Amino acid sequence: MPAAAGPRRITLLGATGSIGRSTLDLVGREPERFRIESMVAGRDLAGLVAAARSFRPARAVLADPSLHGALKDALAGTGIEAAAGPNAVLEAAAAPADLVVAAIVGAAGLGPTLAAVHAGLPIALATKECLVAAGRLFMAAAARHKARVLPLDSEHNAIFQGFEAGNAAAVERIVLTASGGPFRTATVAEMARATPEQALKHPNYAMGSRITIDSATLLNKGLEVIEAHHLFGIPGDRIDVLVHPQQLVHGMVAYGDGSLVAGLAAPDMRTPIAHCLNWPDRGRAPTRRLDLGEIGTLTFEKPDLVRFPALGLAYRALAAGGGASAVLNAADEIAVAAFLDRRIGFLDIARLVEATLDRASAAGLFAEPADLDAVAMVDAQARRLADEILPHLAAKTG
Amino acid sequence: MPAAAGPRRITLLGATGSIGRSTLDLVGREPERFRIESMVAGRDLAGLVAAARSFRPARAVLADPSLHGALKDALAGTGIEAAAGPNAVLEAAAAPADLVVAAIVGAAGLGPTLAAVHAGLPIALATKECLVAAGRLFMAAAARHKARVLPLDSEHNAIFQGFEAGNAAAVERIVLTASGGPFRTATVAEMARATPEQALKHPNYAMGSRITIDSATLLNKGLEVIEAHHLFGIPGDRIDVLVHPQQLVHGMVAYGDGSLVAGLAAPDMRTPIAHCLNWPDRGRAPTRRLDLGEIGTLTFEKPDLVRFPALGLAYRALAAGGGASAVLNAADEIAVAAFLDRRIGFLDIARLVEATLDRASAAGLFAEPADLDAVAMVDAQARRLADEILPHLAAKTG
Repeated sequence: MPAAAGPRRITLLGATGSIGRSTLDLVGREPERFRIESMVAGRDLAGLVAAARSFRPARAVLADPSLHGALKDALAGTGIEAAAGPNAVLEAAAAPADLVVAAIVGAAGLGPTLAAVHAGLPIALATKECLVAAGRLFMAAAARHKARVLPLDSEHNAIFQGFEAGNAAAVERIVLTASGGPFRTATVAEMARATPEQALKHPNYAMGSRITIDSATLLNKGLEVIEAHHLFGIPGDRIDVLVHPQQLVHGMVAYGDGSLVAGLAAPDMRTPIAHCLNWPDRGRAPTRRLDLGEIGTLTFEKPDLVRFPALGLAYRALAAGGGASAVLNAADEIAVAAFLDRRIGFLDIARLVEATLDRASAAGLFAEPADLDAVAMVDAQARRLADEILPHLAAKTG
Repeated sequence: MPAAAGPRRITLLGATGSIGRSTLDLVGREPERFRIESMVAGRDLAGLVAAARSFRPARAVLADPSLHGALKDALAGTGIEAAAGPNAVLEAAAAPADLVVAAIVGAAGLGPTLAAVHAGLPIALATKECLVAAGRLFMAAAARHKARVLPLDSEHNAIFQGFEAGNAAAVERIVLTASGGPFRTATVAEMARATPEQALKHPNYAMGSRITIDSATLLNKGLEVIEAHHLFGIPGDRIDVLVHPQQLVHGMVAYGDGSLVAGLAAPDMRTPIAHCLNWPDRGRAPTRRLDLGEIGTLTFEKPDLVRFPALGLAYRALAAGGGASAVLNAADEIAVAAFLDRRIGFLDIARLVEATLDRASAAGLFAEPADLDAVAMVDAQARRLADEILPHLAAKTG
C-alpha cells in the first residue's frame, strides 16, 4: 500500500455492522497505525454518530438520504463532514485511502465497493455479493484498475495466508471448511420438520439470520466456493468443502508438491480483519490464541450432498457461469425469507433454489451480465421467478 | 537462485542415504528441471556408482579415500570425474551449483555443509549437526556469505512454508509436532523395562536406529527445537512441541494477529525435498495427497516432560547456549549406543545426558565455540564425560 508516513487511512464501508465494529475495535487499539478516513453506514444514525464521535473520521456518510439533516445536526461542531444518499456513499468509497474495508451487507454493497475498485484502491472484501453476483465483472474491474482485493471472510483469508500468488499454478486444490451447522448430524426427516428456531442455532458464530440459515443448508459455503473461485482463479472442481465442526481450521491450500498449508484461528473476525488491515505486514489482534494441546481433537467430514443439496446447487451455478450465481443468490434470499416466515419447510429452501435455477436457465438468465445494471436485472428476474414458484412449494408444506 | 536458463544444478551431499535417494527420485522425474552436478557419499561405493551411472553428474565423490581406485575403475569411460577423500568432498561441496542438498548424516556433514556455506551457495539443510552442534557459527557464516538456508526436515520445512521472513517480528510462537514415539502411552515402569526392539518401533517412519531411539525419548524433537531456534531466530521459550500421533501436521507458525498457519503433508520426505528443490517456486512430488475428509481426526497432546525428560534437557541446553547443545548431542549418541548394546535401560538415556550436561557445565564446556575445531573439542570432551558416567548407570541397570 502506498501509504506515506503516518497512520494508514481506512475507509470503512459498513461501519455499524459486525465487521465494521470489529474493525473499529482494532483501529481504536492502534491509533498510531490506523486512522478512519471515511465511515459509511446504511440507516443506523445513532450507531454512525457514536462511532464518528469516537473515531473522528474526515467524513461520516449514511446511505439513507432522509437522515441527512439529523446526521448533520448530530455531528455539528465536530468538524466531521456529514453526508447522505447513494452518491455521497459512492464518493466516500472512491475517496483517497490506503485501504477500503468493504463490509456493507447485501447487494447494497456492490456499487460502493465497485466505486472503490474503479478508484484503484486496495479493498478488504467482506461483501459477498461483489463476487457471488458479479464475480467476473468485479475481478476484471479490479485487474483493470489495479485494485488489490484482500479476502476478509475467515475462510478466504485463511486460504489467502497459504496462497502464494507467485505459485498459483502449483495449487492443486483449495479447501474451505464448514461448521456443518445445526443439522450436521440430523436425518432428512428431522430436517424436513426443522423450525426456524432450530435452524437459527449456529454452533459457533452469532450472525444475521440469512447467513445463519445459509449455514444450516450449506448454501453459504456454496457462495464461499463461488467467491473463492473468483478470488483465487481456481475452477470449482478444484475447490473442496470439508465439514469441520470445531471451526478452527478455516481454509487450506494443497500444492503439487504434496504440501497442504492450513489457516487456523479462533472464531473471531478480528483475526482476518487484522490480517487485511496490516497486509503485507502482520499486525496484532487481541483474540484468544489457539492451544491445540488444550483443544486436543480436530475432526473433518466430507459434506453430505444428499442432505445438503444446496451446496451442490452452488457448484452447479459456478459451473454454469454468467448470471447463474446471481440467480442462486437471489433465489436463496427469497427462499430463506419464506422459510423464516414459515411458508415453506427447511428442505424446500434448496428445492426453491433449484427450481429457480432451472427456470432461469431456460429463460436465458445464465448469460454473462455486461455491467451492474445487467446484474440487477438478473437479480430482479430471479426473484420474480422464485416468487412464482414459491406458492407451489408452500402449498405442499401447508 | 541465480540459475541461468536450463536445469537447476544440484550438489547432493549424502547421495546414498534416505534423503539422497528421495532427492534422486524427484530429480529423475524432471530431468529438464534438475541436473545433479556433484554427488557425494561416505563409503557406499556400489550405491554411489549406481546413482552416478544413472544420473551422470559431473563428479562423484566418496569421503573414504581408500575407495578412490575402485570408484575410478567403476566409472571409467563414463566421463564422470571420480574423486575421494575429505578434501575432494569439501571441493565438491563448494563447487558452483544452484542448490546444495546437505544430507550427510552425523558430524561428518558439518565440514562439507559449511564449505558450501562459505561458497555462498543456497543450502537445503538436512544435516542436524550443523545447527545442533554449531548453530550460531553456522548461521553467522550463512549470513556473512549470503548463503540461503532452506530447512529440509519435515517439521522445519512446514514452519518455513508458513513463516513470512518479512514478518518474523510478528511471529509469537512456532510449534513442532512429534509422533510421541512407541512409548507415547506407556507408563514409567514400562519405559524402564523397554527393550531396544520395542524402542525401535517407530509408528510412522522407518529411520536409522539413533534417530528412532531419539524419537522414542523425544530427544530428537529437542534437537529440532534447537534447530528451529537457529533457523528462524526464535528463542526456545517461544517454541512449542505438540505430540500429534498422526504426524500429518508437521509444524505451525502462530502470529500476533491470532493466525496460526499450519503445514501438513503425508509422511514422505519427497514433499519437503521438492519444496526446497523448487523454492521459491513450487514443484511437484508424487506423494500421497492428504484427504482430511477420509482421515477424519487429528489429535494433539502436550508432551509429558516427566516421562520424556530428554525434551526438557534440550530446552535446558538451548537456554544455556554455547557448547551446551553439542554436549547434549554427543552425550545422547553415547547413551543411545549404550542402550542399543543393552548396557543401560531406556530411562537411563536421559539420565546419562543430564549427568553429562551437569559435568560439562562445571567443566566450562558451555562456552561459545569459536570455530569447528572448538566444536569438535566440545564433542570429544562430552563423549569422554559420558563414557566416564556410563559405568555407574550401567552398574545399576545390570
